[in-house]
Amino acid sequence: MQPKNLNQPDLNIAYRAHFRCFRGCVGEYSIYNVIYTCPTCGGLLEVYHDTDALRNRSAEAWKTLLDSRVGSTQWPYGSGVWGMREWVTPDLRSENVVSMYEGNTNLYWAERLGKQLGVPDLWVKLCGNSHTGSFKDLGMTVLVSVVKQMMADGVGVRAVACASTGDTSAALASYAACAGIPAIIFLPQGKVSTAQLVQPVANGAHVLALDTDFDGCMRIVREVTQDNTIYLANSMNSIRIEGQKTVAIEIVRQFDWEVPDWIIIPVGNLGNISALYKGLKLLLDLGIINRLPRLVAAQAGKANPFYQSYRNGFREKVMMPAQKTLASAIQIGDPVSYEKAVQAVQMTDGVVEQASEHELANAAALADLTGMYTCPHTGVALAVLFKLVERGEVKATDRVVVLSTAHGLKFTSFKVGYHEGNLAEVESQFANPPVYLPAEAKVVKEAIARKLGD
Amino acid sequence: MQPKNLNQPDLNIAYRAHFRCFRGCVGEYSIYNVIYTCPTCGGLLEVYHDTDALRNRSAEAWKTLLDSRVGSTQWPYGSGVWGMREWVTPDLRSENVVSMYEGNTNLYWAERLGKQLGVPDLWVKLCGNSHTGSFKDLGMTVLVSVVKQMMADGVGVRAVACASTGDTSAALASYAACAGIPAIIFLPQGKVSTAQLVQPVANGAHVLALDTDFDGCMRIVREVTQDNTIYLANSMNSIRIEGQKTVAIEIVRQFDWEVPDWIIIPVGNLGNISALYKGLKLLLDLGIINRLPRLVAAQAGKANPFYQSYRNGFREKVMMPAQKTLASAIQIGDPVSYEKAVQAVQMTDGVVEQASEHELANAAALADLTGMYTCPHTGVALAVLFKLVERGEVKATDRVVVLSTAHGLKFTSFKVGYHEGNLAEVESQFANPPVYLPAEAKVVKEAIARKLGD
Repeated sequence: MQPKNLNQPDLNIAYRAHFRCFRGCVGEYSIYNVIYTCPTCGGLLEVYHDTDALRNRSAEAWKTLLDSRVGSTQWPYGSGVWGMREWVTPDLRSENVVSMYEGNTNLYWAERLGKQLGVPDLWVKLCGNSHTGSFKDLGMTVLVSVVKQMMADGVGVRAVACASTGDTSAALASYAACAGIPAIIFLPQGKVSTAQLVQPVANGAHVLALDTDFDGCMRIVREVTQDNTIYLANSMNSIRIEGQKTVAIEIVRQFDWEVPDWIIIPVGNLGNISALYKGLKLLLDLGIINRLPRLVAAQAGKANPFYQSYRNGFREKVMMPAQKTLASAIQIGDPVSYEKAVQAVQMTDGVVEQASEHELANAAALADLTGMYTCPHTGVALAVLFKLVERGEVKATDRVVVLSTAHGLKFTSFKVGYHEGNLAEVESQFANPPVYLPAEAKVVKEAIARKLGD
Repeated sequence: MQPKNLNQPDLNIAYRAHFRCFRGCVGEYSIYNVIYTCPTCGGLLEVYHDTDALRNRSAEAWKTLLDSRVGSTQWPYGSGVWGMREWVTPDLRSENVVSMYEGNTNLYWAERLGKQLGVPDLWVKLCGNSHTGSFKDLGMTVLVSVVKQMMADGVGVRAVACASTGDTSAALASYAACAGIPAIIFLPQGKVSTAQLVQPVANGAHVLALDTDFDGCMRIVREVTQDNTIYLANSMNSIRIEGQKTVAIEIVRQFDWEVPDWIIIPVGNLGNISALYKGLKLLLDLGIINRLPRLVAAQAGKANPFYQSYRNGFREKVMMPAQKTLASAIQIGDPVSYEKAVQAVQMTDGVVEQASEHELANAAALADLTGMYTCPHTGVALAVLFKLVERGEVKATDRVVVLSTAHGLKFTSFKVGYHEGNLAEVESQFANPPVYLPAEAKVVKEAIARKLGD
């Protein structure tokens, strides 16, 4: 895209957005304040948009505007997130946008997999095809941009921080490095390899390995960030949701503003499904769509507190010690965004389902055979889809979207382990190890002939 | 994008493209024939487009058409490659396009790196942000689509094959899997780990590990493909160039059809720089641009035959045994596309330069500190840029594009090795290892204060 053209008017400043308590406590807070939870009840905040003002533009006009910005060379509209900036953080000034062209990822028609499954209208939204390799970029561009504006406006923030071993710290470190903002990553010593950490390390984050466990890290992070000069980027911070919700809007846009019947997403901390619902609800409120897709939360059986809560009718939030799972990014026993996710499932006639290690690994491998390169979390979502098809909940004529959260390149050892047949609790049904042959044309030709079924 | 709408007319069939001998021997060959080299002289072929016919549409009309297709939901125009299909393989029918939304990657304004370097108009074209993680997708979508059309039209091709340990086999296997076409990958036994192979393994390719070296593999591949039922996807096949050339056109389009002053690209087999020139030359022939950027071929010092040839004024092609380099994808001693690349350099007032292991690794690390995640080949290109700036060839006001060929996620061990300080011949000037601390808030706060320069 073109260099930032800062002479363009920031027209969208006409719109406003604030933090409010998700549970409904009275009070509004600037999104440029350092605030993470409701001062009254301690619950999560949510960014509230003035939908009355947004409705002054017609649904048709919004659709035309957003369509016109796709791939734009005018900063920052080429980004899928900032192409809908009026709906994200409308009063963020262009010069503070920290963007790496996130979004506008392939909504891949899974033609071969869908046919095998008997659901030919199957699509996989490949969010991992992104700057840092996961959907976290969508939220982090918003968070780091907000911090940049805070710093420009003299709010005394000096750095951003999070405790995470995976995609969140990779995205935070990269966007912070792009903006020149110091990033601090907190981790439990000895629990994490350099390979897992190497993205934030390479992006120059201050990586602190503490002599404690993950909970101990969170305790230290909270203490260190108490003076409000270090801005916390963990999931309790609701600003990232504003970026993550754009993927739901983008899916609808990519179907020429038609709503699919299902969106299936792997969930751990539950921010992502909350974000999907928030994006869809906005489209509904603005009259751009007139129905919602059914949202499916897919959990790993080893870390399934939300599934257990669903099974008890959401009467109470289940918490558990998460067991080790191949789907490491959703290995979470006490999900932060529980209340928001309950709303997302209840308001969309949604479903929560789970998948075993065996199921998720083989689902991922089956998808790979049709050209994808599937991370274990996407494997969870696919395995859940297979179950819903088998029991007739997803019908042959339904339009289904599976949300792929990360690029398989982040999970080389998962892929190698699968095809070498040594993943715990997994029987590799589609293992495809290399074939060793002498360098003789005749032998090679015979092997190929066998493979091609001559 | 939307399901394939096959009812749309394939208007572009008005245009024609054929193989011709690059050296100028008489003869035209269908691109849907199984033919790799000139039957007269044995040299490389090149796809020849009928530019007279293409000129019937004005430069302005072409620009408007291509701009209108960016991010289109109409199959297959959402792909950066197929958005310019009239210039790629105009008579390929829509139903045979095998696309995974390649191209339209971020032309990243390297604002912080450019400032550090004193070249503020610096851009990095992040081609590795793609389905299989490298720029090879651009060429492979074309090759596999052509094969699909061959098979549909009864040309007796049964499978695609290549000998490659890296990005080429990953891209071939993925696109073939997407299309349901068998892929065969030939490799030297014991020289390649499962991790390097795991993309084609996962994508269901028939991976044959032969008891020989790489040259031995190539010999067997040639023998096995002699009966023309297995289509060879190695670099000697010039059809991939038609997809790869689109990146040059895309760069110009992303600058609102302005030509940058320099494009710097890492080179090994030399197909990519040939492709850049071919794309730019087409724009020149159609009157869309009126000058060419200077092309810079960046080589690893350990495998620098093209650099040596350049130094001798291209009087003769230098060949050499390539030594081991971190930039493994360009570790090539006898480049296939030599003659085309000489033309690309000579016709653009181009430059060939080299970088040592130390230089490429530190250049990559410096770029990472500004938010990128740079593969070693991109490190070669950046290191060469630094040299050209230092000796005043690249000026402070020049607009420079560095072409990043793969995602850093494909090179985790390179990143880990760098930050652990154990890469051969590399002194890690920007190593950023984790800091180990006790879980005490006071100690942690002090460490952060030191880092933030309090």
